[in-house]
Amino acid sequence: MSYARQMLETYRRELNVDPGVLAATIDALSDCTQACAADADADLSEPNVAELVKCIRLCLECTDICGATVGVISRQGEYDADVATPLLEACVATCKSCGDECERHARMHEHCRVCAEACRRCERACRELLAALKLPAAMK
Amino acid sequence: MSYARQMLETYRRELNVDPGVLAATIDALSDCTQACAADADADLSEPNVAELVKCIRLCLECTDICGATVGVISRQGEYDADVATPLLEACVATCKSCGDECERHARMHEHCRVCAEACRRCERACRELLAALKLPAAMK
Amino acid sequence: MSYARQMLETYRRELNVDPGVLAATIDALSDCTQACAADADADLSEPNVAELVKCIRLCLECTDICGATVGVISRQGEYDADVATPLLEACVATCKSCGDECERHARMHEHCRVCAEACRRCERACRELLAALKLPAAMK
Amino acid sequence: MSYARQMLETYRRELNVDPGVLAATIDALSDCTQACAADADADLSEPNVAELVKCIRLCLECTDICGATVGVISRQGEYDADVATPLLEACVATCKSCGDECERHARMHEHCRVCAEACRRCERACRELLAALKLPAAMK
Repeated sequence: MSYARQMLETYRRELNVDPGVLAATIDALSDCTQACAADADADLSEPNVAELVKCIRLCLECTDICGATVGVISRQGEYDADVATPLLEACVATCKSCGDECERHARMHEHCRVCAEACRRCERACRELLAALKLPAAMK
Repeated sequence: MSYARQMLETYRRELNVDPGVLAATIDALSDCTQACAADADADLSEPNVAELVKCIRLCLECTDICGATVGVISRQGEYDADVATPLLEACVATCKSCGDECERHARMHEHCRVCAEACRRCERACRELLAALKLPAAMK
Repeated sequence: MSYARQMLETYRRELNVDPGVLAATIDALSDCTQACAADADADLSEPNVAELVKCIRLCLECTDICGATVGVISRQGEYDADVATPLLEACVATCKSCGDECERHARMHEHCRVCAEACRRCERACRELLAALKLPAAMK
Repeated sequence: MSYARQMLETYRRELNVDPGVLAATIDALSDCTQACAADADADLSEPNVAELVKCIRLCLECTDICGATVGVISRQGEYDADVATPLLEACVATCKSCGDECERHARMHEHCRVCAEACRRCERACRELLAALKLPAAMK
């Protein structure tokens, strides 16, 4: 069980989202933050770095946003939808852009294939959490 | 002139937003990131810390989001509205919540008054940048 | 296999440290970054928050430093010992302080017990990586 | 007066370092964090990006470490020398490496000249703060 899940298990009071969905999103965001930082660096090591400039930029953007979001959604005490919703939408958009660009290089660069996978998984997790947050309380 | 402004002046190619608006937003985000980190800590030093829990949480959230946004909007080469728009909306929302809460404590705690001011200024700057990004190129 | 490990496996060129040690450290740092952010928040939810102020501060410090170090040690291309060594030493020190403090509250607060564990594991991983970096190349 | 300085002025209790030195270091770290993020991106826009790979990497490292250190040294309540000392040493080392590399490109790229200046200023500020932290209290 991941630390994110273990931490959520210790919460006495009710969460307003399913702890499994939340823990999966936190883990996917952490993984994506790291994978994008590593992929930007791996791109910088390639002889064709000039063709990977867009990929590097999108990886850096994805790292910044996903890294900040780990912190925000780990703070369960006061969950503010006005903040969390656009922030998760920004995560979905940056993971989508970065995942698309990494996929274009996936056949040539194995590190881009791994990074694309981390981005796709994170995009899906953020969409799921967004959907969960939008459901009225009575339906959860 | 701030480093953010100096860096923007070195850009040879056209930016899609006014460099003055952009530099002011970057500076306001950097200041807000630091002020919120410092205010959360100052709150933790107060004898009535239990009454400042909401303020601490909002400061931590504001620090995380504004800090990440400095990086994202400092990368001018590839500016992606699908990402930048929700991210700046998240900044506006977190600065508004944090500014409102800090203002409630401003009379009692001078550090909250300073932090509220940094949040208000950052909120305004992000709103201005959002407005600038939404204008069609022909109108700028 | 973690994404950190998968990314390292894609590196064609020689790393100057064992990829298993490196991937374990990256994963431990990511986990610790998240656990400390979550624990600071869980502390803020406790009725005895005033007694947890030191714990909250140490968690925030540990999050900041470990989070930055994930990025730095994920960039394998140019590994600078003058930077990596003091940075990992700062990680060891902050994980030790935070782990000690969390342990003091572990019996009363399950979330502190989980966080202490994440800090201990991260401290060990950083010490191991430091040791590996100090070994002369010929001995590795 | 910067927000960092204003925040420090609100502290009722004694700081263990001169607030002017501390505020200057916080401001220099914030500026350096932003300048390095912007310079890495400006490098990525250059036609000779392949020659700037080392510069990009060092800028990313400098951003990560200085950004985290802003948070750490903004938390004045509990100042832990075992953590702050190696962390500031890591700042000095990354600012020195990044400043040296940026200076090599300063004549060709104005953005590297500006970034080198931000790194130098930050390196000096961190050295000064380190020296202040090492002085015995009686000598301050």
